[in-house]
Amino acid sequence: MKALIVQKDHSIKIEEKAKPSVSKGEVLVKIKASALNRRDQWIREGKYPNIKPSVVLGSDGAGIVEEVARDIDKKLIGQEVIINPNINWGDNPDVQSRDYEVLGMPTNGTHAEYISIPADRVYPKPGHLSFIEAAALPLGGLTAYRACFRHGQIEKDKKVLISGFGGGVAQFAFQFAMAVGAWVYVTSGHPNNLRKAVSMGALKGYDYSNKEWAKNCSFDTKGGFDTIIDSAGGEQFDQLTRLLRPAGRLVFYGATNGLPKTLNLYHLFWRQCTLHGSTMGNDDEFVQMLEFVSTHKIKPVVGSVRPFDDILEACNEMKEGELFGKSVLTF
Amino acid sequence: MKALIVQKDHSIKIEEKAKPSVSKGEVLVKIKASALNRRDQWIREGKYPNIKPSVVLGSDGAGIVEEVARDIDKKLIGQEVIINPNINWGDNPDVQSRDYEVLGMPTNGTHAEYISIPADRVYPKPGHLSFIEAAALPLGGLTAYRACFRHGQIEKDKKVLISGFGGGVAQFAFQFAMAVGAWVYVTSGHPNNLRKAVSMGALKGYDYSNKEWAKNCSFDTKGGFDTIIDSAGGEQFDQLTRLLRPAGRLVFYGATNGLPKTLNLYHLFWRQCTLHGSTMGNDDEFVQMLEFVSTHKIKPVVGSVRPFDDILEACNEMKEGELFGKSVLTF
Repeated sequence: MKALIVQKDHSIKIEEKAKPSVSKGEVLVKIKASALNRRDQWIREGKYPNIKPSVVLGSDGAGIVEEVARDIDKKLIGQEVIINPNINWGDNPDVQSRDYEVLGMPTNGTHAEYISIPADRVYPKPGHLSFIEAAALPLGGLTAYRACFRHGQIEKDKKVLISGFGGGVAQFAFQFAMAVGAWVYVTSGHPNNLRKAVSMGALKGYDYSNKEWAKNCSFDTKGGFDTIIDSAGGEQFDQLTRLLRPAGRLVFYGATNGLPKTLNLYHLFWRQCTLHGSTMGNDDEFVQMLEFVSTHKIKPVVGSVRPFDDILEACNEMKEGELFGKSVLTF
Repeated sequence: MKALIVQKDHSIKIEEKAKPSVSKGEVLVKIKASALNRRDQWIREGKYPNIKPSVVLGSDGAGIVEEVARDIDKKLIGQEVIINPNINWGDNPDVQSRDYEVLGMPTNGTHAEYISIPADRVYPKPGHLSFIEAAALPLGGLTAYRACFRHGQIEKDKKVLISGFGGGVAQFAFQFAMAVGAWVYVTSGHPNNLRKAVSMGALKGYDYSNKEWAKNCSFDTKGGFDTIIDSAGGEQFDQLTRLLRPAGRLVFYGATNGLPKTLNLYHLFWRQCTLHGSTMGNDDEFVQMLEFVSTHKIKPVVGSVRPFDDILEACNEMKEGELFGKSVLTF
């Protein structure tokens, strides 16, 4: 089968690899579509610890169960499934265990024609999603779900800011917050993304390259936000905390712009604000996320669809950062 | 009556003032003891907004109800009471309302022979506490209670660090964490305070002027803390966040050393850690705190007791920062 394989020098390459066999407890899924995440690109850039050569990359995928191990119910064969990228979250809903991994390094991932995976990692594909849409959902949807609801406590009529609208998780967070009836605002450095957000229902978008944006935003929102979802960090982080309303929550799941240079503790403690580090989500949250997406008929924003053979081109496009929406590969 | 009055230049002075009368809903408390807080000193230094001259300072006090308004049950007369320093917290348990005040500026406070105060602000003095001990409890105990339990979720067998052991709130936080059976560690810049903490049951104390303290602490605790309670902020803040275990909580209620210069977001989001700004506590928490202190027979650490006439001397001593324990004034 074809698979995207990590090389010794961390470069990535499509190679032929033996079709995996199913071990006890596993199912063999014929992948119909897989999707890219920044994680794939970071591994390619050597930015991940313990990168193992010859591993199949890919955390997101959807497909059809083709074969099951003897101890697994045969009824699963033929089922259209979406894959949960969590491995070994563990018993504590608050935080992943030490053995936790994300599918696709060091465990073989979804950028391949087949994946052999424990049966409890596959869930029925939500009925309103195509394989392409379903493949775009798992990692980003899970991360956004936990950030929005466990930590961010977003609900109807809350004022919410999604910073860096454009990234996959941010788009899901935007859709999820809209779905529950929050008042949603966004920031982006790309005017195009701001226009798209408004067309998708955002009340307003702020270009953070405009020095006045935070002041304008505070004025427009009459004092800021109940919840802010951020993955940029950097110098803007402190600015975001100042846009928190009393008892506001800033949830962060990344720091693509590096670390902040200060943090206004006075503002935060007097207003009883909280900052929540968040990454991925537990298995219960994955199930809840699928139900939520099904209930609200949410469809991932897909920015590009390519045949699997063009995956390197797709990776390069993601690196450029100009793509709006998830990048999906199909077999 | 004698009272500690704020002057036009923000200095403070004992003056004669008319004994207050009771309005509807109020009781008149004859103060037996009042206690100092840093807040009193900050007002004296002009560091508080909207300082009004001729106000009676003081947030902490205990005494005896001497008179009640016509609409208040006469049975209250003669009751030994402790005063809740919250004014207008409001309906939201998560955060105080816009009208919130702490007793003792701009509303007349406890550093006086008498205070007239709404009847719902007085609670029976815990039976195991003297007036002196009771006077030392309200503001510090309330702040520590909310920080420890609402935000810090401290419970039996959790590993807890109380930074800056020496301050009033920190001492209460220490006692509260000990009372529920947590494993408690402290930091201080004063070796004396570290010795005192160990004599009170701390597993270990770290002198934060030792550059290796955080490394040693991480080693001793096998990876740090479930909860850290801090009021110093400053450069040490980032160091504290790195001492958080997975899903750890850093609760901060002050920033006496100023603002941090960075914050390791990567460490925090990967470990799903949270940072909680906290100040004071709501009225339910005040009641819970009194019950907690009664159940566990906790006695505030009283560092000095002086006659009320010596309150300026007591303020100066607090300013020096060498006093261990609360500074109490008696009539």
